[in-house]
Amino acid sequence: MNLDELRNDVCRANRLLAETGLVTLTWGNVSGISADRSLVVIKPSGVPYEALSPEQMVVVDLEGNRVEGDLRPSSDTPSHVLLYRHFEGIGGITHTHSRCATIFAQARLEIPCLGTTHADHFFGPVPVTRPLSPREVEEAYEANTGQVIVERFAGLHPLERPAVLVAGHAPFTWGPDAAASVNNAVALEAVAEMALGTLTIRGDAPPLEPYVLNKHYRRKHGADAYYGQTPY
Amino acid sequence: MNLDELRNDVCRANRLLAETGLVTLTWGNVSGISADRSLVVIKPSGVPYEALSPEQMVVVDLEGNRVEGDLRPSSDTPSHVLLYRHFEGIGGITHTHSRCATIFAQARLEIPCLGTTHADHFFGPVPVTRPLSPREVEEAYEANTGQVIVERFAGLHPLERPAVLVAGHAPFTWGPDAAASVNNAVALEAVAEMALGTLTIRGDAPPLEPYVLNKHYRRKHGADAYYGQTPY
Amino acid sequence: MNLDELRNDVCRANRLLAETGLVTLTWGNVSGISADRSLVVIKPSGVPYEALSPEQMVVVDLEGNRVEGDLRPSSDTPSHVLLYRHFEGIGGITHTHSRCATIFAQARLEIPCLGTTHADHFFGPVPVTRPLSPREVEEAYEANTGQVIVERFAGLHPLERPAVLVAGHAPFTWGPDAAASVNNAVALEAVAEMALGTLTIRGDAPPLEPYVLNKHYRRKHGADAYYGQTPY
Amino acid sequence: MNLDELRNDVCRANRLLAETGLVTLTWGNVSGISADRSLVVIKPSGVPYEALSPEQMVVVDLEGNRVEGDLRPSSDTPSHVLLYRHFEGIGGITHTHSRCATIFAQARLEIPCLGTTHADHFFGPVPVTRPLSPREVEEAYEANTGQVIVERFAGLHPLERPAVLVAGHAPFTWGPDAAASVNNAVALEAVAEMALGTLTIRGDAPPLEPYVLNKHYRRKHGADAYYGQTPY
Repeated sequence: MNLDELRNDVCRANRLLAETGLVTLTWGNVSGISADRSLVVIKPSGVPYEALSPEQMVVVDLEGNRVEGDLRPSSDTPSHVLLYRHFEGIGGITHTHSRCATIFAQARLEIPCLGTTHADHFFGPVPVTRPLSPREVEEAYEANTGQVIVERFAGLHPLERPAVLVAGHAPFTWGPDAAASVNNAVALEAVAEMALGTLTIRGDAPPLEPYVLNKHYRRKHGADAYYGQTPY
Repeated sequence: MNLDELRNDVCRANRLLAETGLVTLTWGNVSGISADRSLVVIKPSGVPYEALSPEQMVVVDLEGNRVEGDLRPSSDTPSHVLLYRHFEGIGGITHTHSRCATIFAQARLEIPCLGTTHADHFFGPVPVTRPLSPREVEEAYEANTGQVIVERFAGLHPLERPAVLVAGHAPFTWGPDAAASVNNAVALEAVAEMALGTLTIRGDAPPLEPYVLNKHYRRKHGADAYYGQTPY
Repeated sequence: MNLDELRNDVCRANRLLAETGLVTLTWGNVSGISADRSLVVIKPSGVPYEALSPEQMVVVDLEGNRVEGDLRPSSDTPSHVLLYRHFEGIGGITHTHSRCATIFAQARLEIPCLGTTHADHFFGPVPVTRPLSPREVEEAYEANTGQVIVERFAGLHPLERPAVLVAGHAPFTWGPDAAASVNNAVALEAVAEMALGTLTIRGDAPPLEPYVLNKHYRRKHGADAYYGQTPY
Repeated sequence: MNLDELRNDVCRANRLLAETGLVTLTWGNVSGISADRSLVVIKPSGVPYEALSPEQMVVVDLEGNRVEGDLRPSSDTPSHVLLYRHFEGIGGITHTHSRCATIFAQARLEIPCLGTTHADHFFGPVPVTRPLSPREVEEAYEANTGQVIVERFAGLHPLERPAVLVAGHAPFTWGPDAAASVNNAVALEAVAEMALGTLTIRGDAPPLEPYVLNKHYRRKHGADAYYGQTPY
């Protein structure tokens, strides 16, 4: 996939994100990385989704420096590029302030795996980061937002758990490409909404049995997947 | 009704399901059974609803083996066929992960009958299954999902209580035909949403008086029904 | 207004009701009464809203007997006509199972007046009826539903408090005409939703100060109203 | 900007408000003030949004007296003009009864700053006024509604905290112009909805760290802003 295709894909994924209803005002952005992992394409900052064209997408290097494009990249760009540098194999990232996922981020609670909807997409609880320190905020806020995510994923496989809640902030999701990261944002919000409701009527709701978690995740992911028309 | 009509009906019911707003991504499927109860038509796995055509519907036998169609059937097919084998008189089945019904499934709580909306559709609480055992999951997960539903309905009449919550998973609904099973999925979600709210403001809300439950159910169902234009 | 106009008005109000989003499936109906208070026009039972035409509206007398129309009237007709017989000055009635108002009906709690939105439409808490007795259900369920509403309004002015919750069932609203009763159904649902949220974050939320309730209600209603373009 | 442009802007902002979904029936209005701060343009009272034209906008002076226009101004006009007289630099005001912000107003609780979504728009908790006294209600209800807002903002900068909850009533938001005040109403509702959910799952959720609040607010506002394409 060349850079023009990536610009198209990322533009389309940003517009898809707006259509999902997960985004209020301009609170959300999607990026994608080139096949050789040298360049990232991301939404321009503060631009409404309806009007987005592929030409407006901003191309940055893995340090977040603008390489192509007339507009400023999303202010969250340093978080995105840091994730790409550390999480091998992810091809797209979505950031939103979707309601229920953000509620868990604000409560600073991980989203427990309470059912098979969760297990179909996230192989275990959706983790929440620690808060940034004053110094981390002052020195490089957005890059350090990426840093605490990476820190939190020590020992976890990013593609098996393609979502995180930044404490006091909001979720990031990722996936094999930009569109898949948007789909994971949709799944995350649904899972968060149902976890919220479940905890409301039963504060001590049990986690899904580990053997069911494993079964559902493996139905959809990996070598033994048998969901959909082409296993991936 | 021949098989072509059934394909049309099931395709239309799947699209109707998408229009109800009960489905996120591809989390939902509808099936229907032929008049002679030998063949089941079901949605193909992981295919978006907008694009569904009758030709894409998959025909399987009552063991879940594909008889006609180029695509793989829904991964939930073994659950559907098992229900058809055991629940006489049901003609269509709908499976969703609709938000509020799934919340009760995750909380592993039956939906109590708290009002006449519930009584109009479900003649008593909506039951929840037991969890599957590790062995049931490993050996035949989807068929055993159907099995625990059937086990839970011992002594209950499936058409008088056309819905179930699979513990830690989500609801299944059924009805005389595919479209009716979708309508019951809509009714179930409404009933679940209102039960959730009722329990939130009054944890000890009383169940509907049995004589009102009986009255409302009989107004709409059976020989003495007088709701609508043609009693059924 | 002649009967044809009333049929038009009631048909339009039923379609308006569907557009408000308050109605799931066919759970709702609107009626209107003729100027001489001899005939009531009401929705036919179980017919979808999109397809409703004025000709399909059913005309009944104040005993609920069909006078004109080919279809059966709403099964709730005896409740409607009983309210018209007892509540002078009301010209239209709406019945829904709208989510949040029904939640209060199921919890069998009145909706307290917690803010000015409520005060703008309902001059005090929205009352809840007692449950019907087994005998009332058996002998004349729908008429007795109207009867317990009338009983609950002893000492209350129906047009100052144009809504009620039937215990374990759902709301009825009314107004000077059919369209106004739909507007009151919309206002009731909003008020119920906000009361539900308010009680969730503050169980002991104080009622609106009586002098503010009075001020807001009188701003919109009665001789000293100054809201809108034509005081009513 | 001349008065015709202001009429256009205010009309467009009122229609935008209706499109946001924040408004039920006619419960909401937007105004704007002329560049020389001598005249205010506001929505007419009780008129539906779809039909609004610039010519219908009402022009009033800073005492709220109608200067131009055939229709009565919004009944909340005295609140608007009082805010314009006291809050220098605000160019537009929006009043709604949006669900979740109103829930906090009814609970008479400020909206705590629990996350960066809040910090992006409101530099600290969203304050709630005291209730009006019986005398304040009787003598000049709407003007005194503005008065208690101004009283509550003693020591606060209105443009850094462009929202308030009137106790037992609902929110007002403002901004540099009419459209910006509508955007702040949208942001406020999102923030209120997420605060409500956060407090539901964790009653003692911690406030956002002050250094993160400061960082996020300054990213979007003031001399050092770097969000969007043109810092403001």
